Amino acid sequence: MNKRLKKLRRTLAKKDLLPYLVSDLTNIRYLTGFTGSYAALVIGGRDSFFLSDSRYEEYVRSILPRDVRFVLQKVDFCTTLEAELKTRGESALYCEKHSMSLASFMDMKSKMKRIRLYPAEDVVNEQRMVKDGEEIALLREAAAITDSCVNHLKSLIRPGMLEWDIAVEIEYFYRKRGCRRTSFDSIVASGAGSSMPHYETSMEKRIRPGDVLLIDMGCHYRGYNSDLTRTLFVNSIDPAVEKLYRVVQTAQQAALEAVRPGITTGKLDGVARNIIVREGYGQFFGHSLGHGLGLDIHELPAVKAGDVKLRKNMVITIEPGIYLPGTGGVRIEDMVLVTGGGCEVLTKSSKDITIV
Amino acid sequence: MNKRLKKLRRTLAKKDLLPYLVSDLTNIRYLTGFTGSYAALVIGGRDSFFLSDSRYEEYVRSILPRDVRFVLQKVDFCTTLEAELKTRGESALYCEKHSMSLASFMDMKSKMKRIRLYPAEDVVNEQRMVKDGEEIALLREAAAITDSCVNHLKSLIRPGMLEWDIAVEIEYFYRKRGCRRTSFDSIVASGAGSSMPHYETSMEKRIRPGDVLLIDMGCHYRGYNSDLTRTLFVNSIDPAVEKLYRVVQTAQQAALEAVRPGITTGKLDGVARNIIVREGYGQFFGHSLGHGLGLDIHELPAVKAGDVKLRKNMVITIEPGIYLPGTGGVRIEDMVLVTGGGCEVLTKSSKDITIV
Repeated sequence: MNKRLKKLRRTLAKKDLLPYLVSDLTNIRYLTGFTGSYAALVIGGRDSFFLSDSRYEEYVRSILPRDVRFVLQKVDFCTTLEAELKTRGESALYCEKHSMSLASFMDMKSKMKRIRLYPAEDVVNEQRMVKDGEEIALLREAAAITDSCVNHLKSLIRPGMLEWDIAVEIEYFYRKRGCRRTSFDSIVASGAGSSMPHYETSMEKRIRPGDVLLIDMGCHYRGYNSDLTRTLFVNSIDPAVEKLYRVVQTAQQAALEAVRPGITTGKLDGVARNIIVREGYGQFFGHSLGHGLGLDIHELPAVKAGDVKLRKNMVITIEPGIYLPGTGGVRIEDMVLVTGGGCEVLTKSSKDITIV
Repeated sequence: MNKRLKKLRRTLAKKDLLPYLVSDLTNIRYLTGFTGSYAALVIGGRDSFFLSDSRYEEYVRSILPRDVRFVLQKVDFCTTLEAELKTRGESALYCEKHSMSLASFMDMKSKMKRIRLYPAEDVVNEQRMVKDGEEIALLREAAAITDSCVNHLKSLIRPGMLEWDIAVEIEYFYRKRGCRRTSFDSIVASGAGSSMPHYETSMEKRIRPGDVLLIDMGCHYRGYNSDLTRTLFVNSIDPAVEKLYRVVQTAQQAALEAVRPGITTGKLDGVARNIIVREGYGQFFGHSLGHGLGLDIHELPAVKAGDVKLRKNMVITIEPGIYLPGTGGVRIEDMVLVTGGGCEVLTKSSKDITIV
């Protein structure tokens, strides 16, 4: 077994959750590298096995560790799974309750009469919170590609351009540099759009001199996601928005300086939020401070009110914002690696006030 | 209420599934036009309501029909939902079992002590199988954009190009024409890659003279998805692959001619499959004949063994394929609208053997 699988098995044994069914495909990718569309992985008390259909047999055999058996699905999923479990003398199975649909659980329950099914915590998602060296390297690369894209945008953006065309250029840039897709639909919001919680990049709207221009973007690179927001200014800067920018920048910087192992997400959220509240904009910061990211663009931990403690090698975003209807919105977002003594900001793009 | 909501309420009343919770965001979009990220819609015995948070309040009020009330989430989701149901004298709630996670269901069950929760069929997904006029118009547009992209590709592709760069050009074309994204990661598979069930468009592989070139692509246009596959030939055509092409083309044409209201998906799948089996390639056609598409790229009905009957105004794909290891793979896929007397093929790109 590889390190990730070994670590998972230790945790499952400690929590008394063996045998455990990993059904979420992203979790399966994390544990085995599998990138297909149909698979299940069972971590057993005695041994572990990977179940898929004939399309993937050759591929799966080529990537599995020696001590994880490939099981070919014959009749149907439940029949094969139940038979494999019975062969091993198992009579129970723990399931990922957040990633499994209610219908799948009910279906398995009715078809696998000789196995007791238990909804269980999504232990793999918990493990994925703390990144290993390979993951950190990929997240670093995804962040660097995003930084070069920001540079590209700064030389490209001119008044008169469509928001839409800026978004298209972001994605073209990412794809040409080896990203399989974006992490999410890029947000390019100009003028009044920047302060709307429900704003979609417009196909008709051109950026105009004096606009604030909020860009939230990220790439999906070799499975891993980046996420960055910069708020730029077109030709000139409205003093009211400049005020917002200074407050957000101060709040973000304070949060970055507070990141360290042991701090709770609630405390960290408070560091940024208190500054924004103190300046009188509390009601205009209507979202949480950030989120974990990795194979998913949003994963654990949620960086918000709560007592989850940050740990070394977590990767999270720090993204305070103020959205003042009629004036404009400002958000500044970076990807951050929690280190032993504090943090390293993975996205290096300048946060100085930038007029394009 | 709009037509879609009225139809849904009639179905739910007939099936005795009121009040019913629509939690899937795509279903909510279908019923109300809402494109945000947080909402729940309850179709009640007496009235219906839409629950969301303050970020979306103004927007939701602007899109809701007059007789669907907006309910602002206060404390938390379950507290607000339970209070609204009790106000209406309700003590039960039916949930979409395929779109709801096991964890969400358990969480609601433990928090809403005065409401009995029942897992129920995803009735909205059933309704979405048959498209209305507005949906058909959008699917037609999405298909037309994809056809123009095929034309663009034919003038663009040259031996020596990277598979990756062809995929990037597909996506750039789509985006420039108003598509918010692709329906799925475009597949550009050349040579031996075309016959691999687990193939990902390569960043290193260049297309070479003599290659078969399988391209599976689709766009996401104003919420609706297109899906098309063409298999092209680079410079020349290998007679063994030409043979496969003829068989797949004959099988696809036979299936297209068999589409009509009342035929079962199993029968239709059989029409294409029998031709491929008769030619000796049955074991190399390892997937189902097609799938419904609309707001989702894969939706009901699955076009495979089974007794679901096609109905007028369903939109499905017809995509037989033969994947011969060592020789190559061929798939031909169109989007098809079921009409009163048969079908209309929405994707019009030529299926004549095309050498690029």
